[in-house]
Amino acid sequence: MEAIRYELIKTCKQSGARLGRLHTPHGVIDTPIFMPVGTQATVKSMTPEELKEMEAKIILSNTYHLFLRPGHKLVEKAGGLHKFMNWDRAILTDSGGFQVFSLGDLRKITEEGVLFRSHLDGSKQFLSPEIAIGVQNSLGADIIMSFDECTPYPADHSYTKHSMERTTRWAKRGKDAHKYPDRQALFGIVQGGMYKELRYESAMQLQEIDFPGYSIGGLSVGEPKGMMREILSHTTRFLPKDKPRYLMGVGTPDDLIDGVILGVDMFDCVLPTRIARNGTAMTSRGRLVVRNATYMEDFSKLDENCDCYTCRNYSRAYLRHLVKTDEILGARLISYHNLYFLLNLMKKIREAIMEDRLLDFKKEFFESYGYEKNF
Amino acid sequence: MEAIRYELIKTCKQSGARLGRLHTPHGVIDTPIFMPVGTQATVKSMTPEELKEMEAKIILSNTYHLFLRPGHKLVEKAGGLHKFMNWDRAILTDSGGFQVFSLGDLRKITEEGVLFRSHLDGSKQFLSPEIAIGVQNSLGADIIMSFDECTPYPADHSYTKHSMERTTRWAKRGKDAHKYPDRQALFGIVQGGMYKELRYESAMQLQEIDFPGYSIGGLSVGEPKGMMREILSHTTRFLPKDKPRYLMGVGTPDDLIDGVILGVDMFDCVLPTRIARNGTAMTSRGRLVVRNATYMEDFSKLDENCDCYTCRNYSRAYLRHLVKTDEILGARLISYHNLYFLLNLMKKIREAIMEDRLLDFKKEFFESYGYEKNF
Repeated sequence: MEAIRYELIKTCKQSGARLGRLHTPHGVIDTPIFMPVGTQATVKSMTPEELKEMEAKIILSNTYHLFLRPGHKLVEKAGGLHKFMNWDRAILTDSGGFQVFSLGDLRKITEEGVLFRSHLDGSKQFLSPEIAIGVQNSLGADIIMSFDECTPYPADHSYTKHSMERTTRWAKRGKDAHKYPDRQALFGIVQGGMYKELRYESAMQLQEIDFPGYSIGGLSVGEPKGMMREILSHTTRFLPKDKPRYLMGVGTPDDLIDGVILGVDMFDCVLPTRIARNGTAMTSRGRLVVRNATYMEDFSKLDENCDCYTCRNYSRAYLRHLVKTDEILGARLISYHNLYFLLNLMKKIREAIMEDRLLDFKKEFFESYGYEKNF
Repeated sequence: MEAIRYELIKTCKQSGARLGRLHTPHGVIDTPIFMPVGTQATVKSMTPEELKEMEAKIILSNTYHLFLRPGHKLVEKAGGLHKFMNWDRAILTDSGGFQVFSLGDLRKITEEGVLFRSHLDGSKQFLSPEIAIGVQNSLGADIIMSFDECTPYPADHSYTKHSMERTTRWAKRGKDAHKYPDRQALFGIVQGGMYKELRYESAMQLQEIDFPGYSIGGLSVGEPKGMMREILSHTTRFLPKDKPRYLMGVGTPDDLIDGVILGVDMFDCVLPTRIARNGTAMTSRGRLVVRNATYMEDFSKLDENCDCYTCRNYSRAYLRHLVKTDEILGARLISYHNLYFLLNLMKKIREAIMEDRLLDFKKEFFESYGYEKNF
């Protein structure tokens, strides 16, 4: 039996977006969904209860970071990642591939895997498809990722093709090494850079191996937004309708809306919590830099259209004070708001799909939001 | 009408400690009480709701910090400190005296007041008894403090006497300048260093001016614990029984218990939140340095005798991971536990007074706690 099951509820008649339901060992998730990122077994500054308050159903955690600290064996001894971090809803872990490839000169890629130096202490480390899956088996997330190479942008056709093909071979090795397919769903990751035929080939090769879900990697890595949309559109059309699709690392409001329209079910991004710690909020009128002097005596709430805990209780002036004085509560309150904003945006998107008016919703959203205040 | 009213419920037959009730414009407070410190209009890393969960009834905020940032006029425009920081229970503000005197070379004291340079930007600033009260009138706390000089330790008799007498004169000027005695209770601060007769004189001079409560300043400033207890004992005996007594800046478990025994009703200290951010917990078995390798695979809770949110949900191993990775949640969870520990200690102290067994309680507490693991 598979660990997860995806149920396609309906397709938006206006936009083609998918409304679905993903059944996991830790609960049912209405899709499309945004997944808050908890890199080091904590969604930065938030408690699990707060994430539940804002209706987060699944969070992401990073294999690379947990592999190095505190170590997957320790997490396994603690009873797995859910128990370790006190989160009883679904978890998705990435494979560590993206992080080790980002190490640049500190890593060496061979067919066997990637030798790299820890960014923490410079110690030599090795990750391969088998090890990455083994680590994720220890962590115990509901959804886990194949070890892939995230092709950089730009990259030439030959490099991209070889890289994509290795990602396919690694996906197969990962699947063979996977110990708990009945309780952890392993996704294949579509690569192929900005080359349509390579994206097609990648999607086909992975489906031949057969996975319970498919991720789309190597997008939002520096390419123009138009190109990203075109490749994404070209990729999702070759993915099976009865499996979930996850667009990795994408989370600006416009990318979320367009991603959904182009057939994506799952998203994750560090953006909401990262910019919050820097004092920037996501609002229905676009980006709001809380530390700006404009808000010094502004006693209105962060977002006039928001009813989250932060907006119900605190003024821009108070949040600005907390940001300016480096108070932890500032990072907390803005993180809460930003995560709530994206989770609530996804909820509105699901409602719009249900009512076949996602294109109308997109138009309305951007009339207020304003592309110029995007991220 | 006075802003506050102190009701002496009973005196512990075993220890002489006072059980009381303090009626304030923002609620009734059972005393003796510990007041969490919210220096910059936030108890570091905590929300007001969390403070209520752990039954905090009154918090302290610092005039010096708020005077500089965001400025008391801004807080006044926001509707006062309670509204600004979303805390509808009682607040006590200090006068800024302790902070400006701590600036050392950056300040100059005259009879008129203290000229100093801001620790933030070096700008020239001035605080006098009248200004300090004016700032506190703008902030709007339920209990406010006279502008005093905290005599350093050691200090000779002549210096201490002159300093104490100026504190008395400043207390009188502050009382005359106080605009809202009906909604903000102004306390006089007993000084006099380590000289018993000066402590006596200070207590008498202040009572002649007449305040609704009395603070004891200039203790726990480096003197031996035995000396502190002796001076404290000598001071409280000259304070009126029908007014609350507040021992400033004291908050280790042994100082709290002994302070209560010596007749103190109110305490504050940054210790619980400060050490928490550094990864140290207060437990029923004394100090616990969470980041120690000992706890790497320790899946038990922080304090076996604690039922706080942190202890109900997280292991030492997880907390250690958060501390080691500098995650905000680590500071949050340990701060929560430490504040809960002290508030809960005060609750047990109140119960022990009610049952005339505070000396027994002290003995039992230290059998488990261990002085060697004190702070």
